[in-house]
Amino acid sequence: MKKETLALADCPVARALGIIGDWWSMLIVRDAMTGTRRFNEFAVQLGLARNILAGRLKKLVAAGVLEIVPASDGSAYNEYALTPKGQGLFYVLVALRQWSQEWVAQAGEQIPQLLDVRDRKPVGSLELHASDGRRLSPRDVILVDAADELLEAG
Amino acid sequence: MKKETLALADCPVARALGIIGDWWSMLIVRDAMTGTRRFNEFAVQLGLARNILAGRLKKLVAAGVLEIVPASDGSAYNEYALTPKGQGLFYVLVALRQWSQEWVAQAGEQIPQLLDVRDRKPVGSLELHASDGRRLSPRDVILVDAADELLEAG
Repeated sequence: MKKETLALADCPVARALGIIGDWWSMLIVRDAMTGTRRFNEFAVQLGLARNILAGRLKKLVAAGVLEIVPASDGSAYNEYALTPKGQGLFYVLVALRQWSQEWVAQAGEQIPQLLDVRDRKPVGSLELHASDGRRLSPRDVILVDAADELLEAG
Repeated sequence: MKKETLALADCPVARALGIIGDWWSMLIVRDAMTGTRRFNEFAVQLGLARNILAGRLKKLVAAGVLEIVPASDGSAYNEYALTPKGQGLFYVLVALRQWSQEWVAQAGEQIPQLLDVRDRKPVGSLELHASDGRRLSPRDVILVDAADELLEAG
């Protein structure tokens, strides 16, 4: 991948990181995606100080990634649930997990597996495809400033 | 996606974030992936203080994400190049970009586009497939502790 201009102040990657680029925020999203819903559960699983956790949850709610909902068991506790925007981070988590599995895990090490619920087999690798269906690698794509592309097309 | 146990201390997502979860580190990788190679180029493009940049570059080299290579033009400057491990972060960047495009960008806003070099059309969405080729959504996968799965299989 190459880019054609340097004018990337509006880069969507930078903006995404501005919302979820904090280490703890992404781990909160990870836990929410696997069913964690209550403040105390997040605190115990993440081993995170309560004031820090409260701040991160507040930021994620403000960003529309999490929403506060009534307790699923009818108790007085509030719960945190992923919004559709938060659920959209699924591919970011899968990409982080696959990179770590390929490049960070030690040989022979047992780490949690992401399985297909239907056949309990490990899922495949993330794929990026062209509009005509070809599978794309980093060398097959180019990052182009939207305004430049319009100029070029005109 | 649900998980079956809480014993995820070895979670690969957490480990990946430990390496590249810093906001600036991921933006350095983004720039390296689109052709930036020199210290001064990173400093100018990221608007990052030189001491902070130096620290992040050093950490990424130590983690095996970047490597220091002789200048491509034969000059005395060193350059930073992505290793294969660093290039493996392509899908993380694409996932962050697609999430931001879908959920963060304003309507009608022009942001840099990721295009197929062959036909200059925008690339498709990231896809996760099962071993038999079915496309998987977050609801179709489950996170399972490796040891539990072995017990279950036994």
